[in-house]
Parts: sequence; structure tokens; C-alpha cells
Amino acid sequence: MNSHLDLIEEARGLLPEGVFQYVATGAGVEETLESAPAAWRRYLLRPRLPRNVTTVDVTTSVLGTPVTSPVQIAPTGFQRIVHADGEVGTAKAAAEAGSLLVLSSRATSSLEEIQAVAGPWWLQAYVLRDRELTAEIVRRAAAAGARALVLTVDTPHVARKARSYEFDTAVGTPLIPELATRDDLGVWQAPDVTLADVHWLAELSAGVPVVVKGILRGDDARECVAAGASAVWVSNHGGRQLDGAIPSALALPEVVDAVGDTAEVYVDGGIRSGRDVVRALALGARAAFVGRPVVWALAVAGTDGVRELLDGFREDVEETMSLTGCTSVAEIGPDLVTLP
Amino acid sequence: MNSHLDLIEEARGLLPEGVFQYVATGAGVEETLESAPAAWRRYLLRPRLPRNVTTVDVTTSVLGTPVTSPVQIAPTGFQRIVHADGEVGTAKAAAEAGSLLVLSSRATSSLEEIQAVAGPWWLQAYVLRDRELTAEIVRRAAAAGARALVLTVDTPHVARKARSYEFDTAVGTPLIPELATRDDLGVWQAPDVTLADVHWLAELSAGVPVVVKGILRGDDARECVAAGASAVWVSNHGGRQLDGAIPSALALPEVVDAVGDTAEVYVDGGIRSGRDVVRALALGARAAFVGRPVVWALAVAGTDGVRELLDGFREDVEETMSLTGCTSVAEIGPDLVTLP
Amino acid sequence: MNSHLDLIEEARGLLPEGVFQYVATGAGVEETLESAPAAWRRYLLRPRLPRNVTTVDVTTSVLGTPVTSPVQIAPTGFQRIVHADGEVGTAKAAAEAGSLLVLSSRATSSLEEIQAVAGPWWLQAYVLRDRELTAEIVRRAAAAGARALVLTVDTPHVARKARSYEFDTAVGTPLIPELATRDDLGVWQAPDVTLADVHWLAELSAGVPVVVKGILRGDDARECVAAGASAVWVSNHGGRQLDGAIPSALALPEVVDAVGDTAEVYVDGGIRSGRDVVRALALGARAAFVGRPVVWALAVAGTDGVRELLDGFREDVEETMSLTGCTSVAEIGPDLVTLP
Amino acid sequence: MNSHLDLIEEARGLLPEGVFQYVATGAGVEETLESAPAAWRRYLLRPRLPRNVTTVDVTTSVLGTPVTSPVQIAPTGFQRIVHADGEVGTAKAAAEAGSLLVLSSRATSSLEEIQAVAGPWWLQAYVLRDRELTAEIVRRAAAAGARALVLTVDTPHVARKARSYEFDTAVGTPLIPELATRDDLGVWQAPDVTLADVHWLAELSAGVPVVVKGILRGDDARECVAAGASAVWVSNHGGRQLDGAIPSALALPEVVDAVGDTAEVYVDGGIRSGRDVVRALALGARAAFVGRPVVWALAVAGTDGVRELLDGFREDVEETMSLTGCTSVAEIGPDLVTLP
Repeated sequence: MNSHLDLIEEARGLLPEGVFQYVATGAGVEETLESAPAAWRRYLLRPRLPRNVTTVDVTTSVLGTPVTSPVQIAPTGFQRIVHADGEVGTAKAAAEAGSLLVLSSRATSSLEEIQAVAGPWWLQAYVLRDRELTAEIVRRAAAAGARALVLTVDTPHVARKARSYEFDTAVGTPLIPELATRDDLGVWQAPDVTLADVHWLAELSAGVPVVVKGILRGDDARECVAAGASAVWVSNHGGRQLDGAIPSALALPEVVDAVGDTAEVYVDGGIRSGRDVVRALALGARAAFVGRPVVWALAVAGTDGVRELLDGFREDVEETMSLTGCTSVAEIGPDLVTLP
Repeated sequence: MNSHLDLIEEARGLLPEGVFQYVATGAGVEETLESAPAAWRRYLLRPRLPRNVTTVDVTTSVLGTPVTSPVQIAPTGFQRIVHADGEVGTAKAAAEAGSLLVLSSRATSSLEEIQAVAGPWWLQAYVLRDRELTAEIVRRAAAAGARALVLTVDTPHVARKARSYEFDTAVGTPLIPELATRDDLGVWQAPDVTLADVHWLAELSAGVPVVVKGILRGDDARECVAAGASAVWVSNHGGRQLDGAIPSALALPEVVDAVGDTAEVYVDGGIRSGRDVVRALALGARAAFVGRPVVWALAVAGTDGVRELLDGFREDVEETMSLTGCTSVAEIGPDLVTLP
Repeated sequence: MNSHLDLIEEARGLLPEGVFQYVATGAGVEETLESAPAAWRRYLLRPRLPRNVTTVDVTTSVLGTPVTSPVQIAPTGFQRIVHADGEVGTAKAAAEAGSLLVLSSRATSSLEEIQAVAGPWWLQAYVLRDRELTAEIVRRAAAAGARALVLTVDTPHVARKARSYEFDTAVGTPLIPELATRDDLGVWQAPDVTLADVHWLAELSAGVPVVVKGILRGDDARECVAAGASAVWVSNHGGRQLDGAIPSALALPEVVDAVGDTAEVYVDGGIRSGRDVVRALALGARAAFVGRPVVWALAVAGTDGVRELLDGFREDVEETMSLTGCTSVAEIGPDLVTLP
Repeated sequence: MNSHLDLIEEARGLLPEGVFQYVATGAGVEETLESAPAAWRRYLLRPRLPRNVTTVDVTTSVLGTPVTSPVQIAPTGFQRIVHADGEVGTAKAAAEAGSLLVLSSRATSSLEEIQAVAGPWWLQAYVLRDRELTAEIVRRAAAAGARALVLTVDTPHVARKARSYEFDTAVGTPLIPELATRDDLGVWQAPDVTLADVHWLAELSAGVPVVVKGILRGDDARECVAAGASAVWVSNHGGRQLDGAIPSALALPEVVDAVGDTAEVYVDGGIRSGRDVVRALALGARAAFVGRPVVWALAVAGTDGVRELLDGFREDVEETMSLTGCTSVAEIGPDLVTLP
């Protein structure tokens, strides 16, 4: 897992500059991009010793779906620009590794391609200006087997990035054909998303639960759950939206505290090792999601790269649990970390 | 907005070394110059999500004057040494962009030139050793349309700077002809300014309100308001006067707390992005002022440069408000930031 | 003592790359490796002055064994890969300097070789999967004169390291012949060590006290003592096991507080000077152990190098005590340090 | 004053390497040497504005002796190794600038030479193993006009330094002939100095007050005053004795608090600007002393260099007082600084 920087360097060598910068950059002056990984490391680990860790069970579940580790795949768009395997490769790797896949609305593979290879998957969605199309997408995703909808609420518009980039978006097959020809995300995303939309989506999707992604405050989290969200996802969008936002590692405890047992809480943002995953779980997250590492791994070795990444994370979580005296994720409690 | 450093580098390439250093340098060993921008970034943003941000209104007012954004132009002297457009260009740009202009007493453009192009403007003034001349300048400014007087109180004398510089001050037309031939500011500025002068100025200027600039403490702020100030401006003079002074970002909450609703509070010092502006407003400032960025933009592209800078700031504030769920500046409250 | 970095550089020049990296590396991304020495320096010294320090007595005892200074030798494996003198050299040096030696289970010198030259020594041991072999090793060590058993509990398996290394382990004579042919520590170490094993070992070893090494929490420390441990050793295994673990300097006060007078507390991890030793004692440790410095000193100058290192540490402790007004280790109290 | 680093570089170019290192180095790994100046800067200045600062009176007194500024000369030995003017030059410069001179016991100029040019001066002294010689030196100093004795208590022996140096000590005339031929300070300094010696000295010196230098704790300060000290000098000996000691800037408030009005409190250690001096006075010090800056100035320009340094410090203090709204040193209170 300590080869994260190596992975980036390898990907940089393989990718066109514009593609590399698209993936790598953050918003503003990249304050949050930089502070997010560092924030996890501020939580010092307090191992419980000695413990019998002959068997360490790293499996868990997210909204009832069993997964082989607490590390799942966060949505990232346009995966075919980094590797021909694209989302199909990521889906295959997730299925093989036993992790949950969250598909981006801007995936460059069709639902049919994904369905053919995927294990359990969720769809990341925006509420669109066109609410009817939104509903249609939700119905389509539910019919195709999406086990949850991840509503990203931190992108009423797309933030300006720190570094410029350019790349050809006409790759693969768009997951959502209606959005294919509209190049600018800002065109179709609704800037007027409110709790009413959370409520509407939760009703609309019927049995398919709604996860609200992008929450960084306890009060917002509580309101989302009251509006029908089954889970809240603490995220700063990989440092790509609100620069200067509180790192998710620092926002997580407040959200967990506010939500209590009423919903699951997930987190992404700067998770770079199994230790970070254990820190997240100790702070109350049910699962941690990784975005850029998946893209770098896909860029470097396609399907195999992603599977190896997930396997590596799972082994790293297992090692950390073993070394902290935890034999199941349920045993990872708040006493395992301290913020001095 | 993340091109602030690029702007400086571009200006450095265009300006004579002495001029560049005059603008760039701070007092002492530049502790405050360095700590001021960094202090804003310590305040982490806590966005409210989801919110309907279809329309984000970044307009506000300062002492009753409507402005198109919370970003105004702080006074900086001798603008014609960096570009022939000088204060006239800055005034034009401010008018076009809809921001308030604060003219320096050491402007190198005449009142007539300014009046011809300016939108709303204030005059930054010192109390001079010659109180009668001070009164004359106040009367002249009021007659010319100044909407407020900004009394700078942190400069009983001019501090020694960290870096040496030399430049020709005989450029343009002095705003205040009586001061034109006196090269050293220390000659004419009064070192005996007290609250009595604030009171005197407030009486003298009649309908023209007085803003006291350079305040860094709650008790001083309260006393200035009691003496007749309509607003208090938290500032450390761009790090050019008292080196080691508390960064304005850290002093602002104390001042806001002390003043309450009795006066408006402004701030400058290290504001480098729309995020910093939102931070300032969250801490209770009514407006943020930018100094050096205006000078660099003027140096690089004259009037157009300043207008683009102001437009860029306004868009950046709008983006930050949108991403933090604020549709009007009134909604930017203290819960939007945290200082961990 | 300020030549610690010089010592590393000298060793680097003498050792094969693989050996150097084996000694130098830490686990994960080496967060703990880096934070451990820095954590000691955060404790500022508060000297008591003036005091009569004509004679400063740096001697103390560990579990009743008199030692000439509070600095003892932590267990490190495979010492013959860095110098032909190996553990025999280290043992000789410890005896000459009057420090306690803790032998690693993976020592590359036989018990007979060690006995021939050693002063007081302890054996660092793991509980093995083969409990009968564990018992046999304990009996053998007791018979050979080990004054205590140091049970390392932070290694249910061997953590992945940050840097790769390779070296020939077939050097010298294995301390424990039964383990010689098994290359991977993970093969024979038990992953199911619990407090019951501490209890079992304490009973088994009869008169030979058991020290539990690797503890970083007060609750664990208290439980180990309740299970029969005579001492608790605060350690993060030189940053080689759980990366991201709390630095031992920060964990020590909690452990001391929990254990009180019921057991001795030792510490290792980033101790680089006599000042660090005095800090450790001020925080309640009875002794400080050094690992890597001994290996570097051995690599550079064999037996003589280790003896000089220990002599240097002793003199440095004496100097620090003298300058802080302490004439005996008993006078080194908590008021001597502050963590601002 | 911001040319401190320039001054060092200039001195480095002029001095033999061994002499430069002797002056520049600190003890241990130079933790305290590095942290001392930085600690002052952590105190942020909170100026009082607006104030009438037409006249700013920087004069004060130390133990009743009027001085032209709060900046005095700390004792440093062997000044003739950096410049032929030596202590005579420093004494002349101090007299001309109106600052107090503290002569080192290891001065390389005779009492007669000093008397011929000096203004008010104190003698820094150690209690020697030979108490009778100590008494003789005290009597001699009193007879020669020393206005106080500064008893350094942080040097029961001389600490090992971080960098090696060598220089010829046979320069000039020893201030104390009896000590001239003994090269090692450790030979004649008493390691058994206690409060009883403070008491003894205070009695012995009769009308000449005793200042205890090297105190870093409130309890020690209170006891020294109780034993007869007229003043306490917070110091870490320029980072040359106990490395890792609390920076004097952080120890000062505790000492001031403990001593109250019963004695004067001075401070040295990392004072590099008039701002640092004002910080020291705000924290309760009556005067600040500078050591290395004097030596560097002497090395660069002899008597003139030191006078310019003192003049520069005085002007810098005056500027800082002016900019913080203080017209006399009595107005420099604790509200002028904050430690965030």
C-alpha cells in the first residue's frame, strides 16, 4: 500500500498529460486535495495487545450487501480515457475482489456491458435539471440491478480546477446515452437540489435505497436521513469541488455523532492505506471508498491492476486489524484512535 | 483565482526591480506578510448541503452603497509606477465591475481624472500634522463625491521594510497637490492621532461617514465606534507596518464580537480567493478588501487586468457560496467555518 | 550523541544495501518511524537550578538488576549480518559498559557464546505456535542465566515494510536452533497470544520474571500486570510493525498512570540522546532501551562501537541530569518536562 | 534589524572557521538554539490604535541604573578572538549607546581597560570551586565599579557542543588573571552551587546586588529571590548548555508570575528584533539582553558595529512601541501579545 506514490508515477508515465491532469487535479489551489490524506494520519493508532488474531474477519456489509472488505470503489467518471478496460474492467475487478462498485453517471461503458461482469453495484447519480430524465435513469438503474442510488449533492455546478486539462470524452459507450452529447456537466445537473429531492428520490426508487454523498456536517446528515436517505457519505469529492473544505477525516466524527444508528455512514477522501481504513471505521464509518487509487491502478494495469489494488487494500486492512487486535470490523471502536 | 502566484511572477517580469520590491515587501522580517494569507486557510469550510443554489446573489452594500460583490479595492499608493493607467484605470475597472474603490492619499491621479470615470469611491486619508490641511482635504473629497473617509490609524510613522527599493515618485498627477512635493510620508502624517481625531473627523465630514482602518483589537474597535466611526476595518496594512502583528483573519472575530451591530466591519490582509472572502464574511466581515492583487493585475494588464481580477473574484465568491449552499451574503454565517 | 546521523551514514557506507535497508526501514509508509524520535523532542526540559550536582549518580536497576545507567540494549535480530562480532560483541560491550542486554530470539550467536562474555541479560521471546517449544526455550534461557523473559506481543505476524531488502540469514549460529531453518518469522510465531499466555509464561518461568513488550495503552498495561507481568515495555517495535501507531513518547504517560507502582515501565522508540532518556524517566519510565543505534554502532566498530555508544549515552544522561539539577535518577520527576 | 542573518554571514566571512563555530554552535543537537528565536515569534502583537505616539520614551532602568533602551548586552566570553576591539570596544559602544554592559568572567580585557571606557556595567560571575577566589573577584569587581553581580547558575559544567571548534584563547588580557591559565572552564567552576551560595554572595557583595542568571522555572525564581537575589534572568545560555530546554520566551511568563513585584526579571535567548524586545516586556521582563548579535556586530565592525547594533535595536524598539501605541515601556502590558 505504500506504493501509492509509485502507482501515480507509473500512471503519469502512461497517460496523456491532459488525462493525467484531469484525474490528478483538485479545485481552487488544492488545499483540500492536500489536506485530506494528511488528516487521516493525524489520528494515531492505539493497538489493543495481546489479542488472539488467528483469524481476522475483514468482511462487512453495506446496506445489507456483503462485501469482502470495508474498502469499496468510489465513482469516478470517464474511466475509458485511462484504460481500454474502463468501467467494465473496474466492475470485473470489483466482482472478483468482492468489493462494491459505485458507477459514475459519466461512465463510459453501457449498462449492458457492466451487468455482464459486475458483482453488486450502486449508481452514482445527480438530480438533473430534467427531473423526468432523472426518474427515467433511476428506473433504468433499478431495473438493471443497482442496489442503491448514490445522490451526489456537492456539485450544484462544477468547480474550477487548479490545473488545466483536456481530453477526448468520446470514448467507449456512455452509461446514460441521454447525457452523452452534452459535454459540460453543468448543463444537465440541477443546481436546485434540496432535501425534497432526497425525499422524492427515496420514494421514487422504492426498494432501492438512497445514499447521500458529499455531506460534511452533522446537521445536514441528520436532515438527509430524516428525508429518507438510508446512508450518508462523508466526502469532499476528492478535493475537486469546494477547495478549503474540512477534510472528511475531520468531518466524519460529527456526522457519525449526528446520525447515530439511524443510517450507515461512509467516507472517502485521502484514504491511502489499510491504516486509513481502520481509522475511518474507528471513527464510525461503515465503509471507506477509494477513487483516485482505482483510476491509477486501472491506468497502469487495467482489470488486473484494480483487482490487485483491492486485494492489497484488503490485506492491508487485515494486517492493521491484526496488529491492532481486532478480529472483526465490529471490534474496531473509537478507542482505537486518538487525535492529539 | 489560483493564478495569484502566476500574476505576481508576470508582474515581476514587467516591473522595474525597485517598483516590484516596493509593492511586494513587508515590514520587519515579513512575518505578518507571510502569516496573513496562511491564517485564512486555517479556517476550514463547512458547506451546507443540499441547497437550492440556482441563483446566488453575491451583491451586498457597504455603508449603504450597493456593490456587486463583497470584494472591494483597498487603497494602495503610487499606482502609476506600475502602469500608465494608474488609479484612473483602477477606478474605471472598479466602476465596470461594480466594486467600491478606495483611493489612496498618495494616488498619482487627480480628483478630476478619477471623478470622470469612477463609480462609488472612498478616500483613504491620514490625519496630517497640519490639521487645517486635513480638513481641507476632507472638504475637497466630500465635494468631489467621496462616499466615506477611511482614516488609517496604524501609521503614526512609516515602518522600515524588509527589502530595499527605489523608484521615481514623480509620475502622474498627485491626488493631493499639497503633498506632492513632500517625499517622505513621515513628514506630513500626524503621529498624535487619537480617538479625538476620529471624533473631529466624523463631525467635520458631516454626512460623509468615517471608517477607521488598521484596527486589530476589540476594545479599540469599540472605542472608535463610540467616537463616531461608522465602520471599522481590520487590517495589518498588508504586513507593511507592524511586523509580527496578529493576522487580520485571527483578529477579525474579536473585533466583530466587540462591535456587534453598532458598525460595519471590513477586513483586508492576505485575501487571495473567493474562499477567503467567504471565510471573512462567515467571521462577520461585511466586505473584504484586496490590495496587492489589484496592483499586480494593474501592472500586468492595466484597466482590463483589474476588471478581470474583480470579475474573477466575484465569480469565485459565487462559486464558493454555491458550493457552501449560500444564496445570499446574508446566509454566510459563523457555522460555515471551523478553526480546528 | 549528536552524531547519531553520522553513525547511520557511516554504517550505510559499510553495509550491503539489503542489510542497511533491513535495519533502517519501518512498516507501512514509515509514519511511526519518523514521528517516534520527534515526539520526544516535543517535551521541553525544565531544569531545576541551582543545585549541587557535584556527584550525579546515573545508576539504577531493572527488575532488581543493577545497571550503570538507565540506557539498556533493546533486542534486534541477526546482528551478525552487520558485523562479525554480532551478539557476542554486543554482549561483551554491554557487560563492559554495565548495561543490560536483551537478546533477540533471532540472535545469530549461540547461548554458549553469549554466556561466555555476557553480563546480565534477558531473552526476548515470542510465544510460538508450538507452545511446547516455547516452554523448552524458556527453560533453556532460564538455565542459561536469563534474568527475565521479554514477551513481545505486537507481532502476531510480521508487518510489510516500506522498503525492500534482502540479505543472507545464514550467518553465525542461531540462538535457538529449532528456529534456524524457518526463514519466515510468521511461520513459528503464534498469532493467538492472549493474557492467558502471559499468565502461563509467568507461571512457567517461575523465578524468572516476565516483561511484556509492545504495549501502548494503559488498559492493556494494567491487564498484563494483573496477568503476571513484572514489567511493561512501551514500544512500537521501532516503527517496524503497526505504522501509524502512537509514538511511545506519547503513550508512555498513559501507561505509567495505569500501572502505578505495580510494575516497572520501560520504553523504547526514537531514543536518540541522553536528553530523551531523561525525558522518558521524567514521564515515569524506569529505563530506556535503544535498538537501531546499537546496530549502527556495531556495524561501524563492532564491540568497541557498542561500548562507546553506551558510554556516550551514559555520559549524556549524566550531563543532562547535571544540567537539570538531578543527582540521582530518583530525582527525575514529572515536573522536569512540559508538553506545550 | 532584519539584517541579522546578513550580519552572521558577514561575520562568517571574516572569522576563522573555529572561532565562527565557537560562537555559532549550541549544545546537543541545537534544538534549543533553533527553537529560541522561533518561540518569540509565536507571540502575536496586538497593537493599541489610535494613540498619540508623538514622543516614545524607550528609556528604562535596570536595578536603578538608567539605560536608554530595554536592550542590554549579555555576557559573552573571549571577545578578542572575533575582533581586536574586544570587550573594550563593546564597553565603549555600550557607553555611547547608553546600554548596560555585562562583562563575562572570561573577558579578554583587563578591568583597567574596561573601566577607562565603560558606562554602567555588571560582572557575570560563576561561583568557583575556590570560594575564597570567588569572594576576591567579587570584591575586586565591586571596587572597580560593577553595579551588580550576575551569577550564572546553569553551568555546573560545560555542555558538549553540536559542532566542533578550536581557537587560540591566548588573546588580550584576561579580566580575571587567576583564571587565565586554566583553559577548561570546568576546572574552576563549582558544580555544587546552591541557594546558599546565592545567599552568601548577596551578603558578601553588600551594596552590589546579585542577579541570578539561567532560571527557567517559577519555583526556582522565587527561591532565588528569597535567598537574596535582586533580579532573576530567564535564560537558556544561548542554547549552549541544556539542549532541549524550554525556550526562554515560553518560560518567562511562569517566572514573572512567580516573582511578582519582589524582583526584576530579565530575559535573553533568541531576541532578534525590537518586536521581540516588546514581546519580552509585554510578558513581564524589565529588560532584554542580546548575546550573539553583539558578537557578530563586533566581529564585523568592532566598536562601531556594536554601537550601530544597539542604536538599531533602540530604534526598532521605538518603532514597535510607536506602532503598538506605547509611549513608554511602562505601557507595554500583557494585553499586547497573544499566544494562539
